[in-house]
Parts: sequence; structure tokens; C-alpha cells
Amino acid sequence: MKLEQLDGSTLLYGIVGDPITAARSPEVFNTMFAQKGINAVLVPLHVGQGDLETAWAGLSMLRNLRGLVITMPHKTRVLPLMSRIGEAGQLVGAVNAARREPDGSWHGDMFDGIGFVAGLRAQGHEPAGWNVRLWGVGGAGSAIALALAQAGVAGLVLHDRDVLRRDRLCRQLQQAFPHVDISTGAHHFKVDAVINATPLGMQATDPLPFDPAELPRETLVVDVVTKPEITPLLQRAMDTGHAAHAGKHMHLGQARCVARFFGYELD
Amino acid sequence: MKLEQLDGSTLLYGIVGDPITAARSPEVFNTMFAQKGINAVLVPLHVGQGDLETAWAGLSMLRNLRGLVITMPHKTRVLPLMSRIGEAGQLVGAVNAARREPDGSWHGDMFDGIGFVAGLRAQGHEPAGWNVRLWGVGGAGSAIALALAQAGVAGLVLHDRDVLRRDRLCRQLQQAFPHVDISTGAHHFKVDAVINATPLGMQATDPLPFDPAELPRETLVVDVVTKPEITPLLQRAMDTGHAAHAGKHMHLGQARCVARFFGYELD
Repeated sequence: MKLEQLDGSTLLYGIVGDPITAARSPEVFNTMFAQKGINAVLVPLHVGQGDLETAWAGLSMLRNLRGLVITMPHKTRVLPLMSRIGEAGQLVGAVNAARREPDGSWHGDMFDGIGFVAGLRAQGHEPAGWNVRLWGVGGAGSAIALALAQAGVAGLVLHDRDVLRRDRLCRQLQQAFPHVDISTGAHHFKVDAVINATPLGMQATDPLPFDPAELPRETLVVDVVTKPEITPLLQRAMDTGHAAHAGKHMHLGQARCVARFFGYELD
Repeated sequence: MKLEQLDGSTLLYGIVGDPITAARSPEVFNTMFAQKGINAVLVPLHVGQGDLETAWAGLSMLRNLRGLVITMPHKTRVLPLMSRIGEAGQLVGAVNAARREPDGSWHGDMFDGIGFVAGLRAQGHEPAGWNVRLWGVGGAGSAIALALAQAGVAGLVLHDRDVLRRDRLCRQLQQAFPHVDISTGAHHFKVDAVINATPLGMQATDPLPFDPAELPRETLVVDVVTKPEITPLLQRAMDTGHAAHAGKHMHLGQARCVARFFGYELD
């Protein structure tokens, strides 16, 4: 499929956010549509924070609109607009993709976590049995925590400046996954991976969320920040002899999971 | 620009209608965007008759949406949603394109008529000074009548089954163009062109709107119906030795005029 072949039968997808110019979903999805000859397109939809409800009501009138990717600042605010929310979306209290069901209703779910795990696996890292330390349990972090528990980690230590939300998530996960050792303070002797799920690293002046130099050499250092691709944290990890896993893998894993949710295989 | 190069900065255009699958604007505009390397896309937006107002309110929230082509059944109903309506749109009481002004308001106009005249000229037919007979003064026909008067025809005879709307348009045009001989019944001795602006010809079983065999050999026979490309009327005209001008020329002329209204040159 080429741009000039889009026609009146083209199926429509979008990504809703503000700002929207840095969104990568159009390139990822349209490359798939182009390569596979699928008559569909994913377009950026620049919607400001207060405009979401009106925009959503209007977008819901488009009979050829089949799915929406949802990014900042709408991931939580979009919840009441869903008819059905998947398990991850319910636990995290946010969705990052919604698809149109045959009856016209919206089914949303959160793919940050399973996308993260898919990204690990695509790089040859199997988290089952791991002990993991996770920094940051906001939208992305809590989704990652859930997906790691589902993937069968042995232990999970949660860190967050917001102690209330850290403890709340800890209790939820402990109840749902009684066989996983989930805590907020204890440091496992063996740490297989330490993950930054805070925004630290997006700004050049940010401090490191933690110092890889203090970790055992065999610990994998993971960042979810995608810009810059090599964050100061990942650079430091490589300088101190650690394996590093960049945010782009999570982003691609996410896209693969959202594509499947929409009914496509990315590759 | 290729499909896989669309990104978060892509400007959005759409065509709103029901049905939408036969819309040609996506191919025409996206071919232009592809050839010229413009980071923009025009997508089909399938909106049912009763859904227009809600859809429009939502679409108006999309900050990167720059313009909409409007087709059946919305051309008249969209009028109250415009902040400003051009002269042709006001006379016809319908618009077929709306662009987003810098303040976010919508400016609509009707390009069926000037697109028709542009299509004639692109084929080497200059209507200034012509005597024209026009069958059908609905949305497209009344826009064509106005554009022909603006283009300087000498005489214009209007025909329509709906005598009231025929006479109303006749009076409006007589007032606006006192130097053009506009009437509803008289047959000019010399007829340069006879135009079908009725839907007759879309169905294979339709009768001819008029019989080219009864026209002088030098009269141009014109159809606005685009599917089939060679309508029974045009086929009959060619069989009786007349020059024929097909609906596709109007469609391309329209697209050229709407593109210019949106700020682009189609070729």
C-alpha cells in the first residue's frame, strides 16, 4: 500500500495526544500497512487535555475508525469513555490503546507492561525467575510491575518517591500474586535487573535514578526513557561493564502488542 | 512523502460523507502530497446523516486537522457549522469544502461550479459568450449555473422538474447578472453546450435527460455524472457526431479548486 493508494475504503487508526509531534506510532504502523499491503492508515490526532471528551464523542461517529492509540495526557482521563477495560488497564487505572468492537463500543487496555516484557524477550532476556528492582510506579511503572509478576518473576522490589502509591500497588500485587516476593524496601541478595520507569533521563540535567556502579556486574540495567536513545543511565551502565536494555525495545514491544490488539502482526 | 513517512507532525485532511467508499479525494490529494513531498494526508471519514454535528464538534478539536471535503449527504446540513461561507456556498445553500482558519474557525465554500468551469477550460472549452442549456438545478446544477454566469456566458436556459426551485434560481441569477440572458423556457437559436446536472445516467436503466440527436452537430454535450465515465448520454452524443465532455473533468477541476482553497497546487 502506498500513500497515493489510500481511497474511500481505507480503514482509519489514530494516536491521540498532546503534544503529538514526537509520536512514533504513525511510522511504526504505517510501515506495517505499507509492507503488508493493508488498506489502512494511522494518523496523529492532536487533542488538548480539556478537549478529550468532545473529540472522543466525535471520533466515535467515524464508522471507518477502528482503533486509537492513547498517549499523554489522556491515558487516565480516557477510562470513563471505555465500555470495557482489560485487566492491566484496570489495575494501572490507565489505557494506552482502544479498539472499536463490532457493536461500536470501545475496549481499552494498557500495553506498557506486556510491551515491556515483549521487548525484554525480543532481546533474549527472559524475566521468569528473576529478582527485579523497579524505580518508579506511575503509569508505565505500575504496568511494568504487573506484567513482570504475570511473567513469573521470583521477586520484585518497588521504589517510588510517592510512598502511598508505591504501597498501594505493592498490596494489590501481593494479593494478586501471592507466590511472587513483592516488597518495597528489602534488597534481594541477587538482583537480575534494575529498571528505571521514572522520567529521569529525559532532561540532560536530570540526576541518575540510581547508580549502576553499585550493582553486581551481572545485573541488567534497563531504562524506559526513549529519548535520548542512550540515556545517561544506560551510558553509565555500559561504562561500568553492565549489559543495558534501552527504552526503544519497550516501545517496539508495545507497538507489537497494540498491533495484535488491533488484529495485525507487526512482523 | 511515503505512507511509512507519515509521523507525529503530519497535517490532517479528510472527506466526510456517507457512503464514503467511492470517494476519489483521497487518491487525488494523497497523490499530490506524495509527489510534492508534503507531510499531509487526506483520509475518508465515514459519517452518517444524523451524526454530522457530533462528529464535526469532535473533529474541530483536532488541532492538526486543516480542512475537510464534504460530500453527500452533508453538503447542506454542514452550513450552520461554518463561521464564514463564500459567495457560491451562500447562493447554492451548500458547501463542499471547509478549511480551518488560524483562529480555529471554519470557512466553507462550494466548488462544484468553479470546478466545472475549470474542467471545461482544462479541455479547451471557454464558456465566455456561450449560450448554454442546463438540465437540473439541484446542488451541483445551481453551482454550475452561478459559475457559468460568473464566467461570462451570453445566455443560460434552466430546466428542472422542480419548477419552484428552477424559477427561484432564475430570479436570483437574473438579479445578480443583469447582462446575462437567463430564462427558463426560451430556446436559443444557437446552443453551444447542453449540460446534464441531474443524476440521470448513474443507473443503467435511467432515461436520457435529453436527446443529443435533436441538437445541432456543433453543440457540446456535457455530463456531470462520473460513474460510469461514459454515460449513456455521452455515448449517444458521440454516436450522433457531437463532442462530449465527461464528468471526470468537473471532478478534477473541483479537486484543483479545493486544493487551492486548502493552500496547495494540484499540479
